[in-house]
Amino acid sequence: MSKRELGVCYYPEHWPEAQWAEDARRMAELGLAWVRIGEFAWGRVEPRPGQFNWGWLDRAIEVLGAHGLKVVLGTPTATPPKWVLDRHPDMLAVDAQGRPRKFGSRRHYCFSHPGYRQESARIVTEFARRYGRNLHVGAWQTDNEYGCHDTVLSYSDAARTAFRDWLRARFPAQDRNGGDIEALNRAWGNVFWSMDYEDFDDIDLPNLTVTEPNPAHVLAFRRFSSDQVVQYNRMQAEIIRQYSDAPLSHNYMGRVTEFDHYKLGEDLDIATWDSYPLGFLEDRVGAGVEDQRRFARQGDPDFQAFHHDLYRAVGRGRWWVMEQQPGPVNWAPYNPAPAPGMVRLWTWEAFAHGAEAVCYFRWRQAPFAQEQMHAGLLRPDSAEAEGFDEARQVAFELADAPDVQPVTAPVALIFDYDAEWAWAVQPHGKGLSYFGLVLDHYRALRRAGLSVDIIPPDHDALADYRVILAPGLMHMPARLKQALAECGAQVLLGPRSAARDAHMNIPVPLPPALPGLKVTVSRCESLRPDLPEAIEGGGQITGYREHLEHDGQVVLQDAQGRALAVRDGNLVYMGAWGDARALDRLVADLCERSGLAHMALPDGVRCRDTASERFWFNYNTEAVDLPGMGELPGCAVLRQPCP
Amino acid sequence: MSKRELGVCYYPEHWPEAQWAEDARRMAELGLAWVRIGEFAWGRVEPRPGQFNWGWLDRAIEVLGAHGLKVVLGTPTATPPKWVLDRHPDMLAVDAQGRPRKFGSRRHYCFSHPGYRQESARIVTEFARRYGRNLHVGAWQTDNEYGCHDTVLSYSDAARTAFRDWLRARFPAQDRNGGDIEALNRAWGNVFWSMDYEDFDDIDLPNLTVTEPNPAHVLAFRRFSSDQVVQYNRMQAEIIRQYSDAPLSHNYMGRVTEFDHYKLGEDLDIATWDSYPLGFLEDRVGAGVEDQRRFARQGDPDFQAFHHDLYRAVGRGRWWVMEQQPGPVNWAPYNPAPAPGMVRLWTWEAFAHGAEAVCYFRWRQAPFAQEQMHAGLLRPDSAEAEGFDEARQVAFELADAPDVQPVTAPVALIFDYDAEWAWAVQPHGKGLSYFGLVLDHYRALRRAGLSVDIIPPDHDALADYRVILAPGLMHMPARLKQALAECGAQVLLGPRSAARDAHMNIPVPLPPALPGLKVTVSRCESLRPDLPEAIEGGGQITGYREHLEHDGQVVLQDAQGRALAVRDGNLVYMGAWGDARALDRLVADLCERSGLAHMALPDGVRCRDTASERFWFNYNTEAVDLPGMGELPGCAVLRQPCP
Amino acid sequence: MSKRELGVCYYPEHWPEAQWAEDARRMAELGLAWVRIGEFAWGRVEPRPGQFNWGWLDRAIEVLGAHGLKVVLGTPTATPPKWVLDRHPDMLAVDAQGRPRKFGSRRHYCFSHPGYRQESARIVTEFARRYGRNLHVGAWQTDNEYGCHDTVLSYSDAARTAFRDWLRARFPAQDRNGGDIEALNRAWGNVFWSMDYEDFDDIDLPNLTVTEPNPAHVLAFRRFSSDQVVQYNRMQAEIIRQYSDAPLSHNYMGRVTEFDHYKLGEDLDIATWDSYPLGFLEDRVGAGVEDQRRFARQGDPDFQAFHHDLYRAVGRGRWWVMEQQPGPVNWAPYNPAPAPGMVRLWTWEAFAHGAEAVCYFRWRQAPFAQEQMHAGLLRPDSAEAEGFDEARQVAFELADAPDVQPVTAPVALIFDYDAEWAWAVQPHGKGLSYFGLVLDHYRALRRAGLSVDIIPPDHDALADYRVILAPGLMHMPARLKQALAECGAQVLLGPRSAARDAHMNIPVPLPPALPGLKVTVSRCESLRPDLPEAIEGGGQITGYREHLEHDGQVVLQDAQGRALAVRDGNLVYMGAWGDARALDRLVADLCERSGLAHMALPDGVRCRDTASERFWFNYNTEAVDLPGMGELPGCAVLRQPCP
Ligand SMILES: [Zn+2]
Ligand SMILES: [Zn+2]
Ligand SMILES: [Zn+2]
Repeated sequence: MSKRELGVCYYPEHWPEAQWAEDARRMAELGLAWVRIGEFAWGRVEPRPGQFNWGWLDRAIEVLGAHGLKVVLGTPTATPPKWVLDRHPDMLAVDAQGRPRKFGSRRHYCFSHPGYRQESARIVTEFARRYGRNLHVGAWQTDNEYGCHDTVLSYSDAARTAFRDWLRARFPAQDRNGGDIEALNRAWGNVFWSMDYEDFDDIDLPNLTVTEPNPAHVLAFRRFSSDQVVQYNRMQAEIIRQYSDAPLSHNYMGRVTEFDHYKLGEDLDIATWDSYPLGFLEDRVGAGVEDQRRFARQGDPDFQAFHHDLYRAVGRGRWWVMEQQPGPVNWAPYNPAPAPGMVRLWTWEAFAHGAEAVCYFRWRQAPFAQEQMHAGLLRPDSAEAEGFDEARQVAFELADAPDVQPVTAPVALIFDYDAEWAWAVQPHGKGLSYFGLVLDHYRALRRAGLSVDIIPPDHDALADYRVILAPGLMHMPARLKQALAECGAQVLLGPRSAARDAHMNIPVPLPPALPGLKVTVSRCESLRPDLPEAIEGGGQITGYREHLEHDGQVVLQDAQGRALAVRDGNLVYMGAWGDARALDRLVADLCERSGLAHMALPDGVRCRDTASERFWFNYNTEAVDLPGMGELPGCAVLRQPCP
Repeated sequence: MSKRELGVCYYPEHWPEAQWAEDARRMAELGLAWVRIGEFAWGRVEPRPGQFNWGWLDRAIEVLGAHGLKVVLGTPTATPPKWVLDRHPDMLAVDAQGRPRKFGSRRHYCFSHPGYRQESARIVTEFARRYGRNLHVGAWQTDNEYGCHDTVLSYSDAARTAFRDWLRARFPAQDRNGGDIEALNRAWGNVFWSMDYEDFDDIDLPNLTVTEPNPAHVLAFRRFSSDQVVQYNRMQAEIIRQYSDAPLSHNYMGRVTEFDHYKLGEDLDIATWDSYPLGFLEDRVGAGVEDQRRFARQGDPDFQAFHHDLYRAVGRGRWWVMEQQPGPVNWAPYNPAPAPGMVRLWTWEAFAHGAEAVCYFRWRQAPFAQEQMHAGLLRPDSAEAEGFDEARQVAFELADAPDVQPVTAPVALIFDYDAEWAWAVQPHGKGLSYFGLVLDHYRALRRAGLSVDIIPPDHDALADYRVILAPGLMHMPARLKQALAECGAQVLLGPRSAARDAHMNIPVPLPPALPGLKVTVSRCESLRPDLPEAIEGGGQITGYREHLEHDGQVVLQDAQGRALAVRDGNLVYMGAWGDARALDRLVADLCERSGLAHMALPDGVRCRDTASERFWFNYNTEAVDLPGMGELPGCAVLRQPCP
Repeated sequence: MSKRELGVCYYPEHWPEAQWAEDARRMAELGLAWVRIGEFAWGRVEPRPGQFNWGWLDRAIEVLGAHGLKVVLGTPTATPPKWVLDRHPDMLAVDAQGRPRKFGSRRHYCFSHPGYRQESARIVTEFARRYGRNLHVGAWQTDNEYGCHDTVLSYSDAARTAFRDWLRARFPAQDRNGGDIEALNRAWGNVFWSMDYEDFDDIDLPNLTVTEPNPAHVLAFRRFSSDQVVQYNRMQAEIIRQYSDAPLSHNYMGRVTEFDHYKLGEDLDIATWDSYPLGFLEDRVGAGVEDQRRFARQGDPDFQAFHHDLYRAVGRGRWWVMEQQPGPVNWAPYNPAPAPGMVRLWTWEAFAHGAEAVCYFRWRQAPFAQEQMHAGLLRPDSAEAEGFDEARQVAFELADAPDVQPVTAPVALIFDYDAEWAWAVQPHGKGLSYFGLVLDHYRALRRAGLSVDIIPPDHDALADYRVILAPGLMHMPARLKQALAECGAQVLLGPRSAARDAHMNIPVPLPPALPGLKVTVSRCESLRPDLPEAIEGGGQITGYREHLEHDGQVVLQDAQGRALAVRDGNLVYMGAWGDARALDRLVADLCERSGLAHMALPDGVRCRDTASERFWFNYNTEAVDLPGMGELPGCAVLRQPCP
């Protein structure tokens, strides 16, 4: 058990050295424990190949340490200097249109480029060797926001070569080519349009094809691309561990799903993520316009919590918010200021979900370059910005708050990156996404007042849960099917559960073919979003539905009496994308059957239990009456002893 | 006269050979007569250059034939294997952005590439030589869906070279260059912006210009591109005819208008098309959102019929539906299931318009590759899918139905591919298209209960018709002008009739300059779609109008009393894009003057007369009362003796 | 003082020589004084390199001159013939996606290409030498519509090289590289993401970066690109002045803001612009859909006037409309015909704002090439088109109208191209633009019945004005800040005034840091357009607001009592984007404090004072009652003696 802590992101290289001590003093005075530095500083550390300028960084760490601050040191590989590109002109990622993605911002590298991997290994080694035993360096961060700016998928020559090798390893052969190309042709169904290959070197990347490429081809490319990120990070992790015992972290970005965060997390000690509630609401949550208006200054009531729960799983219990929005950001379509109280609310919500630390991004607003409109705790003139005071209040409140305590929630929701890619490869209907489906289920659990664990599909302690939601898992290994059938929890499956085999083919017998569930999906259809279908007793289907052959108990049916959701034993299969009302009904039913208490929270109100406290959060700007507890003001947090 | 028949598309190469006999048995049992095969099988027939695997195809044909099924054999040129590309790396089409359109799906070739033409000739020769006299091969299909996935227009080097040669032939000279470049400069008005060429080799393809290219340049490129498809198909046709007497077909795709289907049809014996009513409604009909909702499970009430009538003309009387949607497809933005009854309705509607055969696409849903979500008559597990039963019902009903009988409709509607291109080159107002205009006229005829012949602009028996609609023919050869004036039918012309000469210039005297029609278009304007103008007596102008100088009888006028439609003798010129009400008024007027009976059909109901029967189709899901005939259930067909 | 005159654009090379005399006769008879020719005729003057065909142009000028017409002769550099491109294959501009912008229309050149500059100098010299002393050539025009079709920004190799040299000159050094790269790194804040350069040759153009490039980098590129246009034009101007004393003009295009029109104007004698009210309303005004419908046939009531006032400044008093829309155009999304009366109204409005001449585009509609649907005064068949008669009426009215007289308006509005680029580089919120902000302010002044001078930010006679509006000037040099504080006028500033230093960095002390104005912007936010905030007393904030620390008098505040606009002495700072009501309140307040009479004009009515007359314009199609003056018919002009 550790103390909950606050921190901040800081860029000593952006400011005159004379200012560092005063900055450190004010950080400490504010009650911060952690300062993340270094992750964009390659150019100042190694301005020319092999010519190192360590002095300033040594001194920056020393100044921070001298004020009692612990440093998270970032490897600077997200921003290779221009001279690295000069040495490796083909290291740039290439976009799906075939255009190299040029120098001039950040993340300008292809994960598959061997030369850039070597440069990265070299600079990480230098960092780790120099600071691996530095007493002020309390943790490491690898790179920065892998995948941000759509940087996982690269269509470069380096990626093509690596993809072929990756495929060879997936379809191994005793003899020819180092790979069994006939096995690949069979697995992908390449016979379909005379797409059979003779050799792995025939295989191109799946962009710019005349019409859609083979989904098996695309899914393989998605899995390959994810693996490249994992490998790249592992390279960094292995180097750092040679020189340092400090815990290793990476700061994941919200709703970046192009690589498998769990897999990458296996090489970390702490998962962290960057939480920008207002920017996200505008550019990636996928909320409707009405909610974008309503929560414009508060952020989505579930999106942050979802990620908190996700990264708790990714970090196997240990997780932080590495970048917390403290004011308006610069990069969303619209960049409003947080409503008063929200910076505090967001911070507490992270702690309520088990965060060990929350670090604000950034200490002082930079008056130059790309993020000059991104607020910090300080304004460019070093005066306190609006967020400063709320951070101070949290620091004060933390003093007598309980420590971080591990706790298992009663409900689990499976989130599977592979399913996300499979849906992306083949959404079947415009706008349908796995992430959206899972988030809809998460929202329903939250509206019911439930605390949730998000778990990976290979989680091995399913029996810990009384209710498990597993929507949309397009491919389900036999082990997972078996585990769900046997775990004893009330399990909600579908739509599209086990709809594809490992290579994106429809299995026969037809899906979901789950042990203990007599349901067969006989037909799938996608629907116009403006053509919902009514569910008997309340709620609607939107966007997607299946036709079910079954021999179970009908839980939901349409107006024609056709089954939509069917129970068989502890398993419920939902063959449609239900709206909020439908999901609320399903969740209530699961809870009742598993004896789990649930509520119907007021609109915009959420709660979360830790081991000792129940937290209430009001995402509305207006006060809400909590039955039996009085009024919860707008944008406010309420802490109670656990019920 | 031939019997109406059913068929199916089948891919023996997709299934274990052990399954073929059982498949064939079930096809025969279902009442199918035709099985189309082979059109994507190049890779399995010739897995490596010159190395042929005929055995499986021999046996597949034999198995089908043994069950009494007739084979339509497709040439496999829509899916050249990877090794063909390796031999001709520049054979790919290039898109308007300059990007090669890569291997990995289908139709990855440029029609102008000489090397690919040779490869095509070679494989077609092999197919024709082997199966030209095979007793089970009852018909041939060339390639597959020319132009699908926007594959007519290619901006490749091969296309550029061929375009220059094509232009040389269009502007022949005795001496220099093999072409008269001054004649081209004059014809195109290249003086306009100093665009004169000195040589045909100066001429580039009309993409990526700074602002719009010369419309004469673009129109020439469109005509060239169409000719390339026609030539490519002729090459195949000539080869097959050397070896086979079986009729030749090609399966055109809905609303693919980038090449001249009539011209290509001259080299065929039977025109066929691929009818996907639900997919088309979502992605190409151009219906409003309200109709997209209303007919989401039934398809557009006129779009299929329009194509039926079009391909009857293309096939000079002989036409099929080669691919009939039997369930949800995979490729539209949304892919709902047909309403019960619609598979039967669509099939009967094709027969009502004179189809000799309707083949369902496909026999069994493929569990792999690009179309894994495309329903077949069978599910992937070989169980009957929903469409199977409706096909069975049609097969049963066909047994005692009359044979296909040629019949001439009382009304003709001219459809001209050249006009489609001219409008596309120069729509004048956003969203205006010739296809849209013609379809609007077709809808009006259908609402009036009329059976329609679609005819090409060079149809030589105009006197067969009592009413002829000829909207939007931007270029009208003198012969056509004369023929319309003299045919005796009531003729509706305009807007934009004869608005351009053969090279896309405005003629002087100003359009339409029709013999016998004292109308001159003095000004053209395009209008915001949200700024319709009222027509006196009912209806509106939308999108486009002309100002008319005339000396005739005003048929329609605006609120200011300015003429919109003018009659002079048997010719009516409509100088605007009228809405449904306006077109209904014009059609009613034409019918009354020609003594043709017309109705005002209930919304969503259509009818069509064959030589012996009148067919009624209800595209609504609810029943409709037909005056004097009782109730026609939703999604149902009614057959009556001809009135 | 000069007589107001009419003219027309004419292309003798488009018509048979036999027709020229009759054309000239009709022009003179119509009352035209000027004929612009030549600007697209390079191909006919020099069909092959060095081989000149002057005869036809000599004779065309002679024929026009013989009918008493004065010629504006255009240099033909906007349309280099194909052979120029053959000599300089890399002269094409390259778009932001990296694609060369090909031959086949016009403006197919990169301003930075040295070879094309030489070709341009050569042909301009030839023109100037031959016609510099021709008595019929009364004025010159350089090139045509610089920047039209997005042609200022080019990402070519030539541009890259020139940009590096331009930067070297901006960051001069005594020794290395010819430039001080460290100074650039500091000025741009390149430390931010390790973007420091070692050499100017490291710097690439700011396109295709992974995420947004450094705003300092982009702004520098925008300034560079503008300078390239200015230099290119100066090259032409200097050549012509060697051979001719006739005044020099260029025809600017509406809302082309990618280069500094003032700077370029310094090398001209007369600024002219091309006014297409209906096309502009559809494609560039930025009006709402409701106004696009309402004014579809009249054009925006303020957009033309804004440009008239702008080009009066650009021409330092001398300006024309070089191309006046006389009927439907061809290039907008929708191309309606002007309402009767509007061609006259537009012409008179130009004169009311001080135009010396208004020339219609074009004499006769060309029946060929790109603009075949662009109306002229004559139809293609030489009959009079609708605009002809209105031009005749204006010619008649001009006979006894006063001459052009210089007059200073009581109100000035600063328009700054550099601010336009800075906003474009960093709008902060989607859809926010400087041009839009300034136009909103201009509209408010017009609704108040005020005549306006638009002035550049370095205008040196600010004391001439009683009210000055200076919204959105993101960078304000110290001289300008001082001048506004001391000029004595009532000055309206903000939002974003002085928000950036010369290199796009946020200055400290924080903005606006204006002498005499105790206001500090502590925070900026952008708002969803569907989330306006109410202003106490009326009006709303839309899109953007700042939080103000201040010590002045609150002029506007929000519902929470937070200051939105603050007065300190003669300066008012508005920290938000106000709607029409808000701006009307601010303008009224400024007028009252400066003792300037103002009105509240009826909707759609505008007025403008010259030295001797007050003009009233009714942009509505319906008549409007002017209090005390009776009824002003729709689409009409009223001239009164000055009040
Ligand atoms: Zn970040
Ligand atoms: Zn097909
Ligand atoms: Zn122009």
